[in-house]
Amino acid sequence: MRGAVLYGAGDVRFEERPDPKIVEPTDAIIKISATCVCGSDLWSYRGVNPISEPTPFGHEYCGIVEEVGGAVKTVRPGQFVIGSFFASDNTCPHCLAGYQSSCQHRVLMGAAQWNMLRVPLADGTLVATPEVPSDDLVASLLTLSDVMGTGWFAADAANVKAGKTVAVVGDGAVGLLAVLSARQMGSERIIAMSRHPARQKLAREFGATDIVVERGDQGVARIKDLTKGIGADAVLECVGTEESMWQAIHASRPGGTMAYVGVPHGVSLDGQALFFSHVRLHGGPAPVRRYLPELIDLVWKRKIDPGKVFDLKLPLDQVAEGYRAMHERRAIKTLLRP
Amino acid sequence: MRGAVLYGAGDVRFEERPDPKIVEPTDAIIKISATCVCGSDLWSYRGVNPISEPTPFGHEYCGIVEEVGGAVKTVRPGQFVIGSFFASDNTCPHCLAGYQSSCQHRVLMGAAQWNMLRVPLADGTLVATPEVPSDDLVASLLTLSDVMGTGWFAADAANVKAGKTVAVVGDGAVGLLAVLSARQMGSERIIAMSRHPARQKLAREFGATDIVVERGDQGVARIKDLTKGIGADAVLECVGTEESMWQAIHASRPGGTMAYVGVPHGVSLDGQALFFSHVRLHGGPAPVRRYLPELIDLVWKRKIDPGKVFDLKLPLDQVAEGYRAMHERRAIKTLLRP
Repeated sequence: MRGAVLYGAGDVRFEERPDPKIVEPTDAIIKISATCVCGSDLWSYRGVNPISEPTPFGHEYCGIVEEVGGAVKTVRPGQFVIGSFFASDNTCPHCLAGYQSSCQHRVLMGAAQWNMLRVPLADGTLVATPEVPSDDLVASLLTLSDVMGTGWFAADAANVKAGKTVAVVGDGAVGLLAVLSARQMGSERIIAMSRHPARQKLAREFGATDIVVERGDQGVARIKDLTKGIGADAVLECVGTEESMWQAIHASRPGGTMAYVGVPHGVSLDGQALFFSHVRLHGGPAPVRRYLPELIDLVWKRKIDPGKVFDLKLPLDQVAEGYRAMHERRAIKTLLRP
Repeated sequence: MRGAVLYGAGDVRFEERPDPKIVEPTDAIIKISATCVCGSDLWSYRGVNPISEPTPFGHEYCGIVEEVGGAVKTVRPGQFVIGSFFASDNTCPHCLAGYQSSCQHRVLMGAAQWNMLRVPLADGTLVATPEVPSDDLVASLLTLSDVMGTGWFAADAANVKAGKTVAVVGDGAVGLLAVLSARQMGSERIIAMSRHPARQKLAREFGATDIVVERGDQGVARIKDLTKGIGADAVLECVGTEESMWQAIHASRPGGTMAYVGVPHGVSLDGQALFFSHVRLHGGPAPVRRYLPELIDLVWKRKIDPGKVFDLKLPLDQVAEGYRAMHERRAIKTLLRP
């Protein structure tokens, strides 16, 4: 197989390794149709999360089932499937409660920026599309593996619905898809925080009604201005820094919800400030698996087009340029085709 | 007027001061029927929250309206009333959303361990009982000013309902009344964490089905044992230390809620650990005003008896002993009668 290996900060290489094999009877091997670079990959690419050895990278994937283990019952070779960045059995109590990314047997996926992938717990993890999709649907289907499901979780965790005012902190792919999710869930007032014209434009296409370019305390003040001094009912935090988390908490009204879906880095929340904010918090690694059937249906019926977040499409062997472009914020998100 | 002045750590004195007067036309003056010492008063009594000057103390009260300002419309002299530890207008957007303790015009109450009290924003703050209560109801009605409303908020914020497993961290008055609240809201499985026999007994009277004496990681392990390794659906944190907050977070299942109602002291929450816990957080100063009509009704009809938390009843002039007994954990909560 051929794909991306991260060697250290700023150093991603395209390499060849032996093809993956069925290890457990619950495994599937898939031939990747498309994969991509995640904002969270940049934490490692930038050296914030150091790696100890050269590591096959990537965790977003969709493709055609090549082979399944003897215990796999619900997916079969030839099907087009999508899975989450956490493999899950989908039968344990946490899965049944809808928190598949906290599955008691979860496996964090890696080595997905490749042309072949072994997926553990295939029955619990993979969801097949009605048939093999036309090529123009692949980008949108790929987003369901992580960023679209994550934006959707943010909106769901913040209890977004018709009549609610929503603010979104972060204009990366997840933030933009959180805007799309809030719109899809019926919110009429969606405030996107962004200072990048191309991202502002996409936010508006996805349903943002207001754009706030200020950050920090000034950004909070602007959101208060836009909400008659009250604050937003729901704030979707899609970054993961301490500044962005407080910005999100302070932009929320008392009794509102701050949903956070960017993995926090160097974040420490003062308990007393949180207490007096009166804001509800919910977040964590998105249980993308919970939403796959519903989101596949929305994409299949062309009701949503989350694939628009890919503003750079490269062949997989140019993965290094894909990382660079996102690192330098020249691209929102890079699609890679083997 | 006569009442409690805190001079510094361990030093509460009973003193005389000029009677309170109507200052704003929205004020009321009430003659206190009963007041009490709060667990949160101990933060100051123990010197954790230092005070800068001798301070009239206390924030829990009920009594008979003596006089009202010219703008007061809904309460009148002679009525028996209860108010929250935050005065609120009950008309601002935060109040209308049920977060009266974040009222845009809130006033933190003080000087309630006295025989007379000025209450600002009387129309928004005070709720009258159907008539002047018989003396045996006064203790339970007094708890609605803070501890009962706070325990109720914890259970409400954690979305407690029939069929849910609830754990309560903290066996002070608020923790014990959180047990009572969870029972009243229909929870059949209520795990109280306590190592004090007298408090365990009261927890069982209030509806606890299980007692866990272990703390920290061992306490968490015990709750996991009791819930088939899953964790509780709702954990009510009624202490406010970093240890108790993590104990509560880790005792909760992914997707469960940790409600925290003890003012956090020296608490700093690691964002990444919180993220991967998948636990919902909600808390803050309880919007006691929201619950007053419902809770007065429950006490009036003798469906709940939260006044049982007072295991020490003293005349107001012995307030110093009331603090000492709670500080030394000889008493759960001290009732004071002027």
